[in-house]
Amino acid sequence: MPEIAYVNGEFLPLEQAMIHVEDRGFQFADSAYEVMRTYDGKLFSAEEHLARLFRSLSALELEHRFTAKELICIAEEAVRRAGFAEAMVYLQVTRGVARRHRGVPARCAPTIVMTVRELHHPPPSQWENGLSCITVPDSRWGRCDIKTVALLANVLAYQAAQKAGVNDAIFIGVDGTVTEATAGNIFIVVSGELRTPPKSPRLLSGITRDKLLEAARVAGIPCAERTVTKMELLAADEVFVTSTTNEVSPVTVVDGHKIGTGKPGPFAKRVYKQFLQIFVRP
Amino acid sequence: MPEIAYVNGEFLPLEQAMIHVEDRGFQFADSAYEVMRTYDGKLFSAEEHLARLFRSLSALELEHRFTAKELICIAEEAVRRAGFAEAMVYLQVTRGVARRHRGVPARCAPTIVMTVRELHHPPPSQWENGLSCITVPDSRWGRCDIKTVALLANVLAYQAAQKAGVNDAIFIGVDGTVTEATAGNIFIVVSGELRTPPKSPRLLSGITRDKLLEAARVAGIPCAERTVTKMELLAADEVFVTSTTNEVSPVTVVDGHKIGTGKPGPFAKRVYKQFLQIFVRP
Repeated sequence: MPEIAYVNGEFLPLEQAMIHVEDRGFQFADSAYEVMRTYDGKLFSAEEHLARLFRSLSALELEHRFTAKELICIAEEAVRRAGFAEAMVYLQVTRGVARRHRGVPARCAPTIVMTVRELHHPPPSQWENGLSCITVPDSRWGRCDIKTVALLANVLAYQAAQKAGVNDAIFIGVDGTVTEATAGNIFIVVSGELRTPPKSPRLLSGITRDKLLEAARVAGIPCAERTVTKMELLAADEVFVTSTTNEVSPVTVVDGHKIGTGKPGPFAKRVYKQFLQIFVRP
Repeated sequence: MPEIAYVNGEFLPLEQAMIHVEDRGFQFADSAYEVMRTYDGKLFSAEEHLARLFRSLSALELEHRFTAKELICIAEEAVRRAGFAEAMVYLQVTRGVARRHRGVPARCAPTIVMTVRELHHPPPSQWENGLSCITVPDSRWGRCDIKTVALLANVLAYQAAQKAGVNDAIFIGVDGTVTEATAGNIFIVVSGELRTPPKSPRLLSGITRDKLLEAARVAGIPCAERTVTKMELLAADEVFVTSTTNEVSPVTVVDGHKIGTGKPGPFAKRVYKQFLQIFVRP
């Protein structure tokens, strides 16, 4: 089964997919992206992903003429050509190619890139032992609500976690509150209540995050979108990270402190099960 | 005269210069860069630019085996092949191509890209009328001392300036002090003293900035590297921006307020003349 790419109108093998060196995505991080996935071979929540992509492009004042429907058709065709049992679709839109200058070029056709790779299930250890994380200062820029490729702070924070021998890093803002993990939203459980930081320019509002809140409400679990301090994180009964590709990942150690019992807790499992029931396999 | 590019060992016409879509410079802004220039056809301060590039790569823990000498030889060859009277050399080094994941790949050969374009003199209006600028909140990330391609905040700030009908934007930090313009360092003159914000993670220490401080000292102008508040900026006798390609650009209007007399002032001209005498054409 081939790994497939799509670049500006053309499907081709991933290894042949190239863009110009003066693409603004390469020289200025002037670009937004989405990562979609399939369940049972079908794209999941594609409309929500495209709606968020269009919000990102709009925040960047990146003019384009695509419709969500067009991009979903292309993604579906790419998934079909690749033929994996489950696939991950990476979709990136840049402002296009122009003579290098930070000014937004007057006439510039956006670049569209998609890549399709096989999606593997998270390892079983995710639900047996959970993740170990460190906290790191959130040094990202001021518009983390836009899903852009300006991800260098995420790369460096993840690298700090790897060097510390743990799985991931959780960003703590200058005000001492939790924003996100390096590629997912954070939930905690305190006295039976599920909490996640509210939407703001400081974090990306995940599609899985929103669906999980809905699932929790259906399951009768009290939910609150409110700030989570670092101390509340460390003292929580449960902590978990949510993302499109890893779904729900329990966190059992933060900065060397055991979270709750030190094992993945019942709320994470319950809300994940409810999420699957409502959204994935009703 | 052709516009030349160099990509991983090969010189080629700029329009044919491509990189892979999974280059980490494209997907994660995981990349550092420099912009060099020539005077009289010769690369200017190439050693300082390469030293700074290597500091950036080191801050990103981006492993490589190039020497400064190798990269300077390549840049000189590219300038020779292009043959412009004066040239601008853009040099970008990324962590390389790898299966998309925020984790730093174990084995990954860095990508090197250079492009050479003709360098035009700044328009004479720069010294007649000066620039008009707005101030904007500095929403950039926490490591602006590393010269990376995570430049989206700079793009958006410059775009805000264009929409406001002015030439550039000056970043103001949350503490109310000046950091940088969107592609240059800021100097002000107050009661005969030249001031520029001190080196810190909040700004990139420009090569022209450092040389200009040296030139000012030789010219007997008192200098101070200290914080500049927004109020001090607006009330200054002179303001100017420094960068490799635009050298010294007087600023005569900030947020609609006339700076000093509203015309480029004598200190900017004096220190620029001294800079040329010491460093460019001794």
